[in-house]
Amino acid sequence: MPVNIHIAIDAMSGDFGPRSAMLAAQKSLLARPNLHLTLVGDVSILSLYPSHSRIQLIPASSVVAMDDKPAYALRHCRNSSMAIALQQVANKQAAACVSAGNTGAMVALACHLLKRLPGISRPAICKLLPSVSKPSLMLDLGATTQATPEQLLQFAALGSAFYQAVFARTRPDVRVALLNIGAESTKGLEHIRAAAKLLSGSEGFDYQGYVEADQLFEGVAEVIVCDGFAGNIALKACEGTARYILAVANRTMRESLWARLQAVFALPLLSRWRHCFAPDSYNGASLLGLRGIVVKSHGGAGVDAMCSAIEVAYEQVECKLLEKIENQLLVINNGV
Amino acid sequence: MPVNIHIAIDAMSGDFGPRSAMLAAQKSLLARPNLHLTLVGDVSILSLYPSHSRIQLIPASSVVAMDDKPAYALRHCRNSSMAIALQQVANKQAAACVSAGNTGAMVALACHLLKRLPGISRPAICKLLPSVSKPSLMLDLGATTQATPEQLLQFAALGSAFYQAVFARTRPDVRVALLNIGAESTKGLEHIRAAAKLLSGSEGFDYQGYVEADQLFEGVAEVIVCDGFAGNIALKACEGTARYILAVANRTMRESLWARLQAVFALPLLSRWRHCFAPDSYNGASLLGLRGIVVKSHGGAGVDAMCSAIEVAYEQVECKLLEKIENQLLVINNGV
Repeated sequence: MPVNIHIAIDAMSGDFGPRSAMLAAQKSLLARPNLHLTLVGDVSILSLYPSHSRIQLIPASSVVAMDDKPAYALRHCRNSSMAIALQQVANKQAAACVSAGNTGAMVALACHLLKRLPGISRPAICKLLPSVSKPSLMLDLGATTQATPEQLLQFAALGSAFYQAVFARTRPDVRVALLNIGAESTKGLEHIRAAAKLLSGSEGFDYQGYVEADQLFEGVAEVIVCDGFAGNIALKACEGTARYILAVANRTMRESLWARLQAVFALPLLSRWRHCFAPDSYNGASLLGLRGIVVKSHGGAGVDAMCSAIEVAYEQVECKLLEKIENQLLVINNGV
Repeated sequence: MPVNIHIAIDAMSGDFGPRSAMLAAQKSLLARPNLHLTLVGDVSILSLYPSHSRIQLIPASSVVAMDDKPAYALRHCRNSSMAIALQQVANKQAAACVSAGNTGAMVALACHLLKRLPGISRPAICKLLPSVSKPSLMLDLGATTQATPEQLLQFAALGSAFYQAVFARTRPDVRVALLNIGAESTKGLEHIRAAAKLLSGSEGFDYQGYVEADQLFEGVAEVIVCDGFAGNIALKACEGTARYILAVANRTMRESLWARLQAVFALPLLSRWRHCFAPDSYNGASLLGLRGIVVKSHGGAGVDAMCSAIEVAYEQVECKLLEKIENQLLVINNGV
């Protein structure tokens, strides 16, 4: 009998708020018999949805707005659904927290309530990118908009520890690269060039040099490090391109009767191919560097996408990700 | 009888150098009877390829290396194929220059040899992005890695003038947006927020606010402004995603005999759809802000891609782009 896994959900944030959270909760519980969920929010709304023996509702009197600044959230949003869900992790009442809310506020509240891991001055949001060979972990994707060279080095350590923990790899198998414009050492921004010096001078990493944004899916490194601004721009550009290509494919298929007929023949092929890019299956980015598991869902997440984010949190708790990252960080920091 | 159009080509740069340039030149001349090309480079190599009455060869004793810094190129590469090709435009012996070489060096040499347009302190590389509705012009894509708020305002003016000139639009039809992470005014980097204030305070533009990188193909604004670092990251992420999606589509089609059969039926559909993303058809980005037309080709451009870049230069000369931009800039600058 597997041990129970408790996850707290900020049920008020994101474009679809309580509806998406409550329906996703029901669906996730069906798939995972040892999962227990705590949904935090306006109980008068949440209790309109069907109840479940493994769902607990906790009231929160406010919601963090999408345009609240991190400093404002820290001062005025301590009773928000997001803060209370994070507090559940801090109090060890939940092993992980999932939120689709304001990223900046989430980072600020999570840093304050959960505290950072030793040697980590700023957290990073990471995500596994698919690839023609093996997946690459990219970080940061928006937690730390501007990072110092030292923070980029910390992200490399976090990413490397995450990759080793999740894929049971040893350190020499995890290559690290820096996202930049141009492959030559003279290219790009000053803080990236400074981080390159730190990484190549450290024994903790198999540093591969710069990677350009058109190589993100080529598996050139297991860990791709950047600041939150560059990472967010790159990730969203990828999402937008995939959406656009699907739209063009759909349009092409409707151009004529003949095209429609061809499309019917190719439908199973096309739907399998499309499935590879369905954003819902990839929802759930991890906030690394904290003493707790926090999963950020896309703001526009529907039910299936929220289920994916809950599943990401579940799997990270189940594989004891946090302990493993802490252990790997000790090894890396000793090697650095 | 249309007037002759003279274009200078840096025939030594890019991954395929002289071969790509010479074969593309031959092909472009077939398509454009009034086109005359000057190819600059090592004449002993260039003369190995078939000659043509409308091709002139000019010798250059060196080539700018891909890792030469801009300052180095300015001091030591004045006899390079790139510098001499640009000098042809400065001397009015050619109406435009095409190069597949080192972007930083090209920007530095072009600024020095061609001079900047009035009111423009830094040039910008721009490209038209396809969209579900109408194309958006994005700039800068790598000419000015870090831009000040004032320079971002100048890019907005250049982009707006380019769009009006190319699409015969009037000013109120050309909306301008800033690339950022997050739509809220509090999000992103300081210099972007400062540029937002300048743009919204200026009467020269129909300023739309921030656009996120996943909206690049949604036609939310005619002109999307960013610094060269963000623009380069975004554009390359789009290119990498398109390449990856095509690779997955190819793999899906070869998975089984049944999949291969479906693919045969859908082949005309798939090839039409692929054509929309063939990078070769989109090669050729314009360097704006200078007193001359300069087109930057992708470094890895083959023959067809070089032809596209030459065609971009040809069309810009033919439609008198430079004069139109200068006129539009006068109007915008008076409105600012």
